[in-house]
Amino acid sequence: MPLSTAAYAVHSATTPLEPWSLDRREPGEKDVLIEIHYCGVCHTDIHFARNEWGFSEYPMVPGHEIVGRVVRVGGGVTKWKPGDSVGVGCMVDSCRACGPCKAGEEQYCDTGSTFTYNGREKDGSLTFGGYSTQIVVDQDFVVRIPDGLSLDAAAPLLCAGITTYSPLRHFGVKPGTRVGVVGLGGLGHMGVKFAKAMGAHTTVLSHSPSKEADARALGADDFIATKDDEAFKEHPARFDFLLNTVSAPHDLNAYVDKLTLDGRMVLVGLPDPTPLAAFPLILRRRSISGSLIGGIRETQEMLDFCAAHGIVCEIEVIPMQAINEAYERMLRSDVRYRFVIDMASLKA
Amino acid sequence: MPLSTAAYAVHSATTPLEPWSLDRREPGEKDVLIEIHYCGVCHTDIHFARNEWGFSEYPMVPGHEIVGRVVRVGGGVTKWKPGDSVGVGCMVDSCRACGPCKAGEEQYCDTGSTFTYNGREKDGSLTFGGYSTQIVVDQDFVVRIPDGLSLDAAAPLLCAGITTYSPLRHFGVKPGTRVGVVGLGGLGHMGVKFAKAMGAHTTVLSHSPSKEADARALGADDFIATKDDEAFKEHPARFDFLLNTVSAPHDLNAYVDKLTLDGRMVLVGLPDPTPLAAFPLILRRRSISGSLIGGIRETQEMLDFCAAHGIVCEIEVIPMQAINEAYERMLRSDVRYRFVIDMASLKA
Repeated sequence: MPLSTAAYAVHSATTPLEPWSLDRREPGEKDVLIEIHYCGVCHTDIHFARNEWGFSEYPMVPGHEIVGRVVRVGGGVTKWKPGDSVGVGCMVDSCRACGPCKAGEEQYCDTGSTFTYNGREKDGSLTFGGYSTQIVVDQDFVVRIPDGLSLDAAAPLLCAGITTYSPLRHFGVKPGTRVGVVGLGGLGHMGVKFAKAMGAHTTVLSHSPSKEADARALGADDFIATKDDEAFKEHPARFDFLLNTVSAPHDLNAYVDKLTLDGRMVLVGLPDPTPLAAFPLILRRRSISGSLIGGIRETQEMLDFCAAHGIVCEIEVIPMQAINEAYERMLRSDVRYRFVIDMASLKA
Repeated sequence: MPLSTAAYAVHSATTPLEPWSLDRREPGEKDVLIEIHYCGVCHTDIHFARNEWGFSEYPMVPGHEIVGRVVRVGGGVTKWKPGDSVGVGCMVDSCRACGPCKAGEEQYCDTGSTFTYNGREKDGSLTFGGYSTQIVVDQDFVVRIPDGLSLDAAAPLLCAGITTYSPLRHFGVKPGTRVGVVGLGGLGHMGVKFAKAMGAHTTVLSHSPSKEADARALGADDFIATKDDEAFKEHPARFDFLLNTVSAPHDLNAYVDKLTLDGRMVLVGLPDPTPLAAFPLILRRRSISGSLIGGIRETQEMLDFCAAHGIVCEIEVIPMQAINEAYERMLRSDVRYRFVIDMASLKA
């Protein structure tokens, strides 16, 4: 019997989010029914809602930073029981057979993982995300929210958290690594917390000098204002690793130029294409890489790391009804640092 | 007593190379005097001669693919004796004290290595390159040309060879690695030979379909014509490693898109900046890196590798007097695959 579920949906690229109702599937053998308590608001939600990447399907229920509690489980579920605090991130399925899937890197599934919303289940049905009161997910794509993490502030860990944690871990950031975090938004502020917790010497590079106090409060050892291009150019090359979280177009070469020999800049934001020069890469054998969220196993590792280090996101909790205003504020960078929707507002 | 030396020099960015004479220093304690037999012609020579990078100094004697025989050595020279077959590449000195120098990667010297031409010795004097009959070089920046390599065909190994060998080695190309070599010119044809000798499955990606026969003759397992953009786009992502030797502007993203998960494209050519998209990097955690020639120790390793595998460059030997015509032909890609100047032509 389908489960009627309150939600907020967008019906076209040019209309606002509005109340909607959808049917979740009855939990199957391996499924978990989760009552959603909180859902973080990711900039990706805006890109998808407004079809900025050209492959949006409507109606769409965004949201892939989901936390809540298990309500019911299918007969074959071994990992979860009612009452468990759990999370769901950007994926709800993958092929599970390819090399990346077997390696626990479902985000790089050869056939493409199933996105939590605007994705297609194996039966062809459209997926709907976390701007809703409940969700049904295969047990293998559910993660545990460790005791000690507040559910609201943990929600953005499911995307902003893993997106920044994964490249820092994958590319070997360790005590003493000189890390620069480019951009101090939803992603960047998590990058600072993780880099510090991993023992790196952590510098924030931000366009806005006004963010220095915040950067240091978040744990940054140093701050560089990049707005003054000439002053920035004079900074010596001193970073082993740059975590570039900026989604607005910017001069990549200026940042590459700040890397040491064999240094690497990892892009996790999605700026429009900007000119890349070969010289700065060649002169010190530097690299630019990309990184996409993280696998399920690594997401659990990240959550456990957060519990061990007392890390959560800096959030502003909003009711579901404020989502359109929240999008506008995000587009003005007027959020420090992540909106989280309290789903109680949709149940009332 | 300075050593009067016949040479060809360029006196401005807009004038041709012409006969000139320069004084080499009398060999010091650690110096080696080398009679130059052959000098390869690198595309960089044209960039520098025509001041295309904006820091050329005139008069300039280009040439950094130098082979010849030791004629005389300073009293403190332990590594070389008269009659030895030796080479000199892109560097004749470096600080020798920084981390990269101590690691044998003088090309990444923190203070900048001394280029073989258009560089500055520690005493401030301008360096002059291999378009000349003799050169005086510190013994530590001289490499041995192993027996069995013909001196003329070995000359381009000193730049084209090491520039392609170093990234293949540094980034771990090994038997079974799926390597693509982008561009089949002076650099690319060496990349094919090295990748094959390292056991990689080697594909040439070239704009010119007419190069397929050459590519296969050089040892390539496969060939992809990139001129037809639509057909190229349909090729699956299958390369672990792309060695991109192209110096003309081209769409980097189309090549990134052909890399597998965690694949890497290394730039060794110097195209003008072209737009880089973040998506193709992010979707499979791919990387773009740069690589600059190689260190002295690695250059010797490369030469020994060539001797072990019977590798030399494909060359066309020219007299010094044909250099201006050779530049014009290089600009039309009318050379397969490297011009080498026979310095006997300058002594006659």
